[in-house]
Amino acid sequence: MIAVVGLGLIGTSLGLAWRRAGLDRRLVGIDPDPGARQAASGMGAFDETAEGLDAAAGAQVVVLAAPPSAVLAMAGEVARVAAPGAVVTDVCSVKAPVVHRYEEALAARAFFVGGHPMAGKAAAGAAAAEAGLFSGRPWILTPTPATDPGALHQVGELARAAGARVVHLDPDEHDRRVSLVSHLPQLAATALMLAAAGIDGAEQVAGPGLRDTTRLAASPGALWGDVLTLNADAVVEAARAFSQHFAALVDAVARRDAGAVRRIIDAGAAARRRLEEVC
Amino acid sequence: MIAVVGLGLIGTSLGLAWRRAGLDRRLVGIDPDPGARQAASGMGAFDETAEGLDAAAGAQVVVLAAPPSAVLAMAGEVARVAAPGAVVTDVCSVKAPVVHRYEEALAARAFFVGGHPMAGKAAAGAAAAEAGLFSGRPWILTPTPATDPGALHQVGELARAAGARVVHLDPDEHDRRVSLVSHLPQLAATALMLAAAGIDGAEQVAGPGLRDTTRLAASPGALWGDVLTLNADAVVEAARAFSQHFAALVDAVARRDAGAVRRIIDAGAAARRRLEEVC
Repeated sequence: MIAVVGLGLIGTSLGLAWRRAGLDRRLVGIDPDPGARQAASGMGAFDETAEGLDAAAGAQVVVLAAPPSAVLAMAGEVARVAAPGAVVTDVCSVKAPVVHRYEEALAARAFFVGGHPMAGKAAAGAAAAEAGLFSGRPWILTPTPATDPGALHQVGELARAAGARVVHLDPDEHDRRVSLVSHLPQLAATALMLAAAGIDGAEQVAGPGLRDTTRLAASPGALWGDVLTLNADAVVEAARAFSQHFAALVDAVARRDAGAVRRIIDAGAAARRRLEEVC
Repeated sequence: MIAVVGLGLIGTSLGLAWRRAGLDRRLVGIDPDPGARQAASGMGAFDETAEGLDAAAGAQVVVLAAPPSAVLAMAGEVARVAAPGAVVTDVCSVKAPVVHRYEEALAARAFFVGGHPMAGKAAAGAAAAEAGLFSGRPWILTPTPATDPGALHQVGELARAAGARVVHLDPDEHDRRVSLVSHLPQLAATALMLAAAGIDGAEQVAGPGLRDTTRLAASPGALWGDVLTLNADAVVEAARAFSQHFAALVDAVARRDAGAVRRIIDAGAAARRRLEEVC
């Protein structure tokens, strides 16, 4: 039996993905919100849904798919409920605080493996779930010296069953990288959207450029409040790197130095081509 | 006869769009680069191509589709070549400097109407041209008190024939708005890409968020060097507005104030929804 705790976009999509893959495990979806349980049930994502964590007591694998602050807050209860020898994993987009909390809370009783499927979309909630959400996407696992190899293998197999490709990273290194490729773009998209919204009629001349660049700005603030502040040090560092490049470019514009502007934009274009080659 | 000067993405797409619309006008494409002429000819975008501006002498309408600095540099020659009473228009993404230069250069001899079709894509050059590039996109015309109403009407009809919807804006107001919805996103996309490229392995964890947000960073530096420096005052102002929102968000993250982060992200999400409603 696999218990998925948190029936939002990711948790419900996991149920759907494992179902579609024909995974031979009983799937139990847990969420205190009756609306989320009903939506997930209606999509046929789980064999059964339940309100409380006690329903995870019989699970060999517990997947924590709640927002990061909720996952951190339930560590004690998960440790109390989890069966001895169970494997507990999570899907939070910040890893170091979660890994440290759970390695401590579960101690020798159950095994913890930090995880982060790099999948998502702007729409949130069970209703937006889809079986293909993880197809071809990286699913990062963050083993530490304390991680049990068998547990790591089991979680990797489940990630692959959902269609993802597994990548191993140190938790701190994960947090540093996502601060640059995920958290920083969110900050920039929000700030761009707020700047463009500051004048009347901006949308009259808005094109695909603004739409692409600000797509992330549609993400729900509740989730990001958690994620960004849990990864504050790395995010502030990433913002500093961004601001240096941004200031150099604005400076070249202010000096009306078209050659310098061209060189900076071309350096960005070269980096963009390398990105396109790998993802 | 319509002469299109500059057979890049926009100029060649214009030929294709007017052809597809069955426009009953002889189309002449002008470009000093034989490769561009050959590509445009090969796509059947024009009745005839030519190397030099003299070929525009018999045109009732001359469309300047070269990069902004080239358009500014050729004002004297266009004024010399243009037939008396001809309508001259351009497609530059910065309007005030072009409009002022051409109104002065053409004086009473020919009519000038500033234009900016809000269409494009990351790929440049005639080979990337497509007949549908302008379909449903805004085509901004920037009349001034000196603009001839008949010439304005003619250019508007041509824009509509290419599939665009015509919007009228004051040249300075245009430049201010595009600084926010187009030039600023370019700066941010380039700075994001350069920041993310600063660490090894960033692309290993990169997802659709980074891809969307940095799509503009693939744009060619040569064009942007021109555009950004010609619109320097407005761009610097837009960058200042962005930096204030960005700094407030980073500040809330650094203070680990999840509530403040949530409120700022939610304000951005609300603005993003308004954008989605109108474009």
